[in-house]
Parts: sequence; C-alpha cells; structure tokens
Amino acid sequence: MISTELLPILKSVLPADAILTREEARKPFESDGLTAIKQVPGLVLLPTSRKQLLSILSACRATETPIVLRGAGTGLSGGARPLEDGVLLVMSRFDRIIEIDVDNCIARVEPGVRNLAISEMAAGYGLYYAPDPSSQIACSIGGNVAENAGGVHCLKYGLTVHNVIGLTVLTIEGEELKLGGMVLDSPGYDLLALMIGSEGMLGVVTEVIVRLLPIPPVKQLLLGAFNSVEQAGNAVSRVIAEGIIPAGMEMMDKLAIEAAEQFVHAGYPVDAQAILLCELDGNAEDVDVDSKLAREVMLRHGAYQVLESKDNEERELMWKGRKSAFPAVGRIQPDYYCMDGTIPRSALGRVLGEIAALSKKYDLAVANVFHAGDGNLHPLILYDANIEGQLKQTEEMGGKILEYCVAVGGTITGEHGVGIEKLDQMCVQFSPLEIEQFHRIKAAFDEKSLLNPGKAIPTLSRCSELGGMHVHGGVLPFPELERF
Amino acid sequence: MISTELLPILKSVLPADAILTREEARKPFESDGLTAIKQVPGLVLLPTSRKQLLSILSACRATETPIVLRGAGTGLSGGARPLEDGVLLVMSRFDRIIEIDVDNCIARVEPGVRNLAISEMAAGYGLYYAPDPSSQIACSIGGNVAENAGGVHCLKYGLTVHNVIGLTVLTIEGEELKLGGMVLDSPGYDLLALMIGSEGMLGVVTEVIVRLLPIPPVKQLLLGAFNSVEQAGNAVSRVIAEGIIPAGMEMMDKLAIEAAEQFVHAGYPVDAQAILLCELDGNAEDVDVDSKLAREVMLRHGAYQVLESKDNEERELMWKGRKSAFPAVGRIQPDYYCMDGTIPRSALGRVLGEIAALSKKYDLAVANVFHAGDGNLHPLILYDANIEGQLKQTEEMGGKILEYCVAVGGTITGEHGVGIEKLDQMCVQFSPLEIEQFHRIKAAFDEKSLLNPGKAIPTLSRCSELGGMHVHGGVLPFPELERF
Repeated sequence: MISTELLPILKSVLPADAILTREEARKPFESDGLTAIKQVPGLVLLPTSRKQLLSILSACRATETPIVLRGAGTGLSGGARPLEDGVLLVMSRFDRIIEIDVDNCIARVEPGVRNLAISEMAAGYGLYYAPDPSSQIACSIGGNVAENAGGVHCLKYGLTVHNVIGLTVLTIEGEELKLGGMVLDSPGYDLLALMIGSEGMLGVVTEVIVRLLPIPPVKQLLLGAFNSVEQAGNAVSRVIAEGIIPAGMEMMDKLAIEAAEQFVHAGYPVDAQAILLCELDGNAEDVDVDSKLAREVMLRHGAYQVLESKDNEERELMWKGRKSAFPAVGRIQPDYYCMDGTIPRSALGRVLGEIAALSKKYDLAVANVFHAGDGNLHPLILYDANIEGQLKQTEEMGGKILEYCVAVGGTITGEHGVGIEKLDQMCVQFSPLEIEQFHRIKAAFDEKSLLNPGKAIPTLSRCSELGGMHVHGGVLPFPELERF
Repeated sequence: MISTELLPILKSVLPADAILTREEARKPFESDGLTAIKQVPGLVLLPTSRKQLLSILSACRATETPIVLRGAGTGLSGGARPLEDGVLLVMSRFDRIIEIDVDNCIARVEPGVRNLAISEMAAGYGLYYAPDPSSQIACSIGGNVAENAGGVHCLKYGLTVHNVIGLTVLTIEGEELKLGGMVLDSPGYDLLALMIGSEGMLGVVTEVIVRLLPIPPVKQLLLGAFNSVEQAGNAVSRVIAEGIIPAGMEMMDKLAIEAAEQFVHAGYPVDAQAILLCELDGNAEDVDVDSKLAREVMLRHGAYQVLESKDNEERELMWKGRKSAFPAVGRIQPDYYCMDGTIPRSALGRVLGEIAALSKKYDLAVANVFHAGDGNLHPLILYDANIEGQLKQTEEMGGKILEYCVAVGGTITGEHGVGIEKLDQMCVQFSPLEIEQFHRIKAAFDEKSLLNPGKAIPTLSRCSELGGMHVHGGVLPFPELERF
C-alpha cells in the first residue's frame, strides 16, 4: 500500500487532475504491452512541469515510495509494470517538441512526444527521426530511450542509442544532469549511453535531443523468395558483404508468410520457405545501382524469384505484410508470445534448427520474423491461453530459445528490453560478478533503489536459486557449442 | 615513491624482463603523446598473461599502489602520464590477434594490437577496421578504447564506441567482466559504452571484439577550393543534406593549406582561404553518382574549383597533405599545440571568428584543421617554447577556445580525451552535480581510486577553486550566446 503521508504532500503540490486515486482510474495502467502480467498501481501521477516532477521525487524520497516510470505503455517486456505500493509516474503530458534545429539536424523534445510525431514535425524541413519501432505511431521517445528501441531500419540507421545525442535527466535526488549534447562525442564517462536502455532505473528523462536525417528521396523494396531459411540467411550476409547497407533487411518464414498473406494480401509467394524483404534508400541513382546488385546477389545465392516494388504504393503493401505479421499470426491461434533475441548472423541456421526442435518437443507452433540484417530474431510462439498450462509451457520454451541465443554468442534481447519478462535469462547472460557490477551502477544513481525496483537486473539470490545457468563464456546448458 | 613491499611480491610472480626498475629503463615512459608534461614512473611493468595481470592487480591492491595503464603511448591528452609513486602497466605485449571471424565480420584481439594491424590481418578476407586515428600505424586498440578514438572516417563509420562490440575487462578487484559481445545490442546497463572512453580509470581491458567492414571497392577524393571558411562550412552541411554520407569530410584553412603544400606538394590551391577534402567510398557506380552530386553541390555553394583524384596514387597524395598538416605546421614555427574541440556544424563561422580574435589578442598564429563533417575542430596554436611564457599563453588561449566550444553547445574533446590536459575545462563542461555523478561511477568500479587516479574527472575542489566557470546550460563566460 501507498504510504499514508504521501498523498497529502502530493495534493499540496499537484493539481487535482494530475493525481489518479480511484481504482477505476488507475486500472487502465495495470500493465504495459506485456499484458500477461498485471498489477494495478498504488497511485498514478500525471505531472506537467519540471517543478511538479521535483516535488514528486522529493515526496517519494521522504516517504521511501518506489516510482515506476511509464511513457506510452507500449513496452513489451513489462518494464512499466506498476507496483501496488508504488507510484506510477506517467510522462505522457511532457509532449512538447521544443525545437527543430534544421541547421544542425537535431530536434529537442520532451519525453512524452510520440516517436512518429518527431518525424511528422521534421518532415516540413525534409528531415526525419530514423528509429522506427513497430509501435512508432503510439510509443513515446522517453520509452524508446528507456528500452533502447530499435526497428526495421536499425540495420542502417542504428538503435535509439545511436540516434539520441543528448538527455536531460533528473536523478532520484532531484539533481539535474545534462548528458551528451549537440555533438557526436562528449568527455567524461559515457553516462548518455548508460542512461539509454536503463529501463527507468537510473533517472527521470525530462528532455531528449535526437539526431535527424534527410528524408531519402527514393526507396525501393526487393522481395527475394527462397526454398530454405538457411539460403535466405546466407543471402543476407552476401548482400552486406557486397558493401550494400540496406535500410532494412527482414526475413519471414513459411508460417509467418502464410499468415501475413492471408491477412493483408501483400502478394507474398506462399510457396516460399522464407522471404527476404530488402529495402534500399537514398538518391535515385544509388538506389538503382544497389537494387540491381542486391537482386543479382540474391539470385546468385539461392533466391528462385526476386520481386521489386513498382511504386510507393506497392512498396507499402509489401511492407504491410511484414508489419502485420504479429496480428496476422494472432488470427491463426488465439494467443502468441513474441520473443526477442539476437544472434550472430552465422548462427542463424543452428538457431532456427533448435527452435524447430523445441517447437516439436513442446508441441507449440512457431512463426519466425526477423530483423535479419542485424541478427535480431522475433520467434512468435503460438498458444492458447484457455488451455491450462499452455502459457507456462510457452514461457518455458521462450526461455529456452533465449538461452540458446546466449549459447551461440547472442543476447536475450535485441530491442524490447528485459523488464520483468527476462529477469531469469539475465542470470544466463551474465555472471554473478557482472550482475553485481550492474547493482553497483544502480546504487551510484539511486542508492535506496526507489526507481523501478525489481526490473531489468535480477538479484543475485534469484540467480543462485535458478542454479548454475550462466552460459556467457561458460559451458552450460549447451556444452557442444563454442562460446564468446 | 613506490611501496617497498610491492617489488618483492611482483618479483615472485613476474619474469625479470617484465619489471623495469632502473631509471634509464623507466625514463622512455615518462610521457605519452602529450610530451609537454613528464613524470618518470615509479615502476614499469610489462606483463604477458592474464595470470600476471591478476597478480599485479592483487599486489597493487594489497599495497594500495596506484596503476596507470598505457597502450602504445600515442595519446595526446596525457591520459597515460605516469605517477612517481605508481606502477605504469604497459599492455603492449598483449598483442595477439585471437580470431578473425569472417562470417560474422568481427575480430577478437588483445588490447596491445596496433589499430592498423587489425586491418592488415583482415585485408586477406576483404575486410578492415574502420576507425583510423592519425596515429593508427602505432596506436593500440586498447588505447583507442580508453580514449574513444576517432579519425578521418568517423563521419561515416563512427568513433571507437560505434565499432567495438565487446570487451573483456578485469576490475581492480581482479573480477572479470564480459561486456557486450558479438551482436548489436546487449541487455542490462550499457557498461560497454561506459568503459569505452573511460581513460583507463574503470578497469583493465584484456580483450576487444571489433566489428569489421567490407573494404570499399572504390574510393574517390574531391577537393573543393573556397574563398572563405564560412562558405566551405556551409558546403559541408549542403553535401550532407543531399543524403550523401562522405567517408571523410575534412577542412583546412589558409595557413594549414600553405604549410601542407610547402611540405608535401599535394597539389593544393594555395590561393584558397579554405579547402574541403571529401572522400566517397563504396561500389563503383555509387561512388560515381555521389561524387558527381557532391561536386555539383560544392560548386553551387561557393567552391570556385573542385579537383578530383584521378587514381589511387593521386588520392593518397591529396590525403598526404591533410595527414601531414601537423608536422607541416611544425616546420613554420618551432612548436604547436593541437586542440581538440567539437561544435555543432552551424556554429562554425562564430567559432572560427572567435579563434581569429583570440589569435590576434594573444598574438599567436593558428592553423585550423577540421573533421568538418562531424564538427570536430583541431586548431593548431603556433608558438615557440624558447620564448619565456609563450607556452603558458598558448595553454591559456587553448583553454579559451575550448570554453567557447562549450558555450556554443559543443564539447572540449572530440577524440583525444581529457587526460590531464583538459581537467580544468571539464569544470566548464559539467556542473558540480555532473562531476559528482562521474565520481560515483568511478567508485562503483574502483572505490579506492587506484586506477589512473587524478585523470579525466577533476575533483570538485579543483573546479570550485577555478570559480564559477560552468557554462553548460549556464551563462558564463559568454553571456551573448544561447545555451544547450
């Protein structure tokens, strides 16, 4: 329960509409995009100013009330899952675009600004913000910073950490830190990178400076159809080895292709075992040259067909299939569980083989969707929550997939974060020494652990209860594999 | 002085040739590339194995002996300046290239491997390591990590932090941390980025995993000649706004051009007030298209002439002028002091104006060399160390230039690090709260501050002695400027 002292303090510093106390008002905030895990927050706060934020931090310090930060609530790993005895600090009313600096190609925005709103505002100057998570229409830039969000185009343009160049942050002590700034490099320890992806555990972001890029004049999408996922995986490496950096390079397997095609009729070849969607962007001549080369490389490395978008409309339709893959899969089976692991590109064949074996063992179908260029895998495990025990089986199988990703030299998350979903897998990814170092970093910002406690970094006792699972550089549980 | 207990412990665990005790053996290590500041180290150690490293760390902990790390000693900000009462831990014998993983385009190397040696080894597979500091023939990858080194090509390919994907680190406690790995993103706090650029203060790097890129089949260099540096600066933004990302985009002003031309006869137009060197790389067709466009953009925005390298030999000669600019300037005047600041591109005109004004005020000539694409400025202040007081005047003027960089929204270092050279300017760049946060991070890794104490992060008392100099977000000392 919320401390009884807290509410009177907050009421004295916040307007009435910034404090949600009634249960029915708090209930909509009971989960983020990881809807399987719910908890109605003890209190919901919707401040609008820096002064109000400082008052909230001060009141929570005084009463030792934990704070969970929330942007738009689209996160997929439960990073914004509320606490019963905590405050949910919703940043959505910090939604001003402060400045578009055209000369320096940057935008200064508040954390509640939607990802897509930045590009919409910048479009008038021929600029845009590159990272484009699937949720970009709804997700906020503050949430993107918290989870180091990626997207279809991060192969060429990088993750959030590569596109955010400055942050203003309030620590739990109410101290303001300006991290990074308007230029590429900053002296001192890289606290900017440290803050990005820290899942709301190190500070409250109050301002974000992002890099904007010129909108590419031309975009061209190629679709390569392959008889096996291994061939498609190999073709990805071959295209990149030619020096082409596609704007996006996505792979879908047969089940994902079929589901998407039935759903949106994107013109996908349903006889293919795998397709590659390869987008090229830039000026007209470059795109022309690169798409000819990419087509030729795909055909040389196993594609039996390469389609090409004839115009923007067709390109968008072809993308629509990929972007609708998750709901499309949802039509086949009542529920699906979206995993998020990364692997070195060369391990693709092995990992897909292991997923197929696990799928058989658990008797759960898997559709694979893939940011293939950067090795970010999104297996969708299909299940039915109404069948008793199937969610638990699904979670167990998902955990095994992630552990295998680690075993081949990959990681347990590419862009969705750890949140509460992957706490156990953190014990697989990192040694106790590394986990301990994470806790020391946390303490260097937030000694009493008031900011988003219990997320992202497991306790050492949790890891030791799971037993010797650490495989990063170790030998368990896949002793046949070489290690990083 | 070195603790008397230390030497007997070290002699019991290290071979004789790994310990340099005699003064004449220690003397060559008295400075790094910042030769103006010298200190013969108390003891020099040259270990060759992880086991020896662990013994050294243990012995230094037991005797509370500070440790300064050194790679190849080419750093320009004094990060490897030794301590009289400390150990200089030289990592140069860790020089193995452990693995070139062609499928995943990565190399695993020890920290003492020279930057260029990685590319030489990878060349057989058509790959290379992109960051290319001027010292790349000599500098080590471990030093590059410590200083987050850049280079001529970091506009397109990024700094060290963008090209190193994994590190193995020993903390001062002898604990091994594996940070990052073989893939783009890693869960947990971004300790990898935190370690890069931490100037040997957070841990001892024992292994580095770098990203390799396909060697571009074609490179083309354009040279644009302009009647003013402002025009040249504007042309940089215009080229980038066209969606072209040059591999390198360098600017030189009149004094730098003249010095370089007299020295290497690169064919530079000596009547120009500024030149831009714009390199394009990629496949033949892309380079052809982009170089035509870049030429056209430069001509449209004030270039009175654009030269083009006809072959690789001519391209290398044209680069040689730029790469020899520092020694070339050294021929005009006995000494020069190389500054390293970054600024937002749009502030170029103002900053060059301020440098010219300071040059007049201090009566010291300045040659400007510039990584123009990413706003990284290298003013070379010309002075004569034999004239009494002139070095001091030069340092003061250099400090003023850096403070102006901060005032326009830039930083005090682009790629050379802080070391001991820029400790005072850190007080300008950061608020006391930010400095304090840096110290908390340091303590989270190295509570007793045994690793490279006194570098990179000034004490709060040093900053307060300097008086209200903080301008990051503040108003001093250039009240007429807008702030970040």
